[in-house]
Amino acid sequence: MTDPLDTTSDRRPGGRTARIRARVLDAVRAELAERGHEGLSMEGVATRAGVHRATVYRRWHDVGGLLVDVIDAAGEIDWQPPDTGSLRGDLTALNQEIQESLVVQPSFAVALMAASFHFERAARAQTQLWTDRYAQCEILVERAIERGELPAQHTDARSLLIAATAPLYHQLVLLRADPDPQLPKRAAEAAVLAAAAGAFSVRGEGNV
Amino acid sequence: MTDPLDTTSDRRPGGRTARIRARVLDAVRAELAERGHEGLSMEGVATRAGVHRATVYRRWHDVGGLLVDVIDAAGEIDWQPPDTGSLRGDLTALNQEIQESLVVQPSFAVALMAASFHFERAARAQTQLWTDRYAQCEILVERAIERGELPAQHTDARSLLIAATAPLYHQLVLLRADPDPQLPKRAAEAAVLAAAAGAFSVRGEGNV
Repeated sequence: MTDPLDTTSDRRPGGRTARIRARVLDAVRAELAERGHEGLSMEGVATRAGVHRATVYRRWHDVGGLLVDVIDAAGEIDWQPPDTGSLRGDLTALNQEIQESLVVQPSFAVALMAASFHFERAARAQTQLWTDRYAQCEILVERAIERGELPAQHTDARSLLIAATAPLYHQLVLLRADPDPQLPKRAAEAAVLAAAAGAFSVRGEGNV
Repeated sequence: MTDPLDTTSDRRPGGRTARIRARVLDAVRAELAERGHEGLSMEGVATRAGVHRATVYRRWHDVGGLLVDVIDAAGEIDWQPPDTGSLRGDLTALNQEIQESLVVQPSFAVALMAASFHFERAARAQTQLWTDRYAQCEILVERAIERGELPAQHTDARSLLIAATAPLYHQLVLLRADPDPQLPKRAAEAAVLAAAAGAFSVRGEGNV
């Protein structure tokens, strides 16, 4: 079968290939948020996207392939970490963004986490995306050191970022707590206070 | 159908009813850890437990019922929070226990979290169990205040406990990082330093 929408002669960015991908991935996000990964099917995505089923099979192969591509697409977005002028403000803004993504109903982010327990390739793609995002956020810590908000000693930026953001995921995803509008700021503050007290300083091999 | 192992005349704790429950829940834990909730079935559990299928259906109704009961059973264990003589030591010990439960292969704890994304009743049971365990751990904070390790001002014990433990869940469950033997202690230390700096102090209504 051939798909009239799919031509290999038109693969430039923004071209027909890119438009089909955008439609398919929009459909994956919508289906995933509404029905979860258990309700995700190649047929359902093709129908929702208005794209020939054969195209979806040829390009994405299976549901795992769709999930990986939707995660990869998230990584392609020109996301920038917040820049509010203070570490506390930056981490609070970051946490607010995380909280919003987790409490919106239906949440694509939560559906993706659930899916990652079942699709090893999707789990790897998600881990990579998170690794990249945390790496992007290290600039927040570098700026804070430059501004003198943190001790000049080297701070392990990733540990600080994990400490600042982990309570959001723990409360909202695993503990299923009601969203607390103060949590983004409080979790950010706790991490900044811990960092200022040297909690995330790099202390060489064999330290504790 | 009747099950010769199941007699309503023998429901005392430690009796036949309790023994059947223990065998069935052992089977649920083993199946869940080995095959995940997607591989969990009433038939598989009955076979593994050596209990008549009709008994399993009658008493637990469905896979969701098995999951809820296995979580409830975890809550019935006489678990005691650590008591090492310091808040840092207690939180480190708690985190080591959490880390072990998450990195053991196969992990019953991780399988249960995955299942909770799909079984609403299991999710509620798990939330209740976690709520109870965090409540039990508040004694760690109370002892620390008595020992003068934390400022006398009231510290929100649950927030401190979440901050101390969340990085373990975030790193090991969601980010799928390799276990870091230093993480239990480092996450505990960061929370203690933040607490000592007043991060989790209760500051009345409308504060930030």
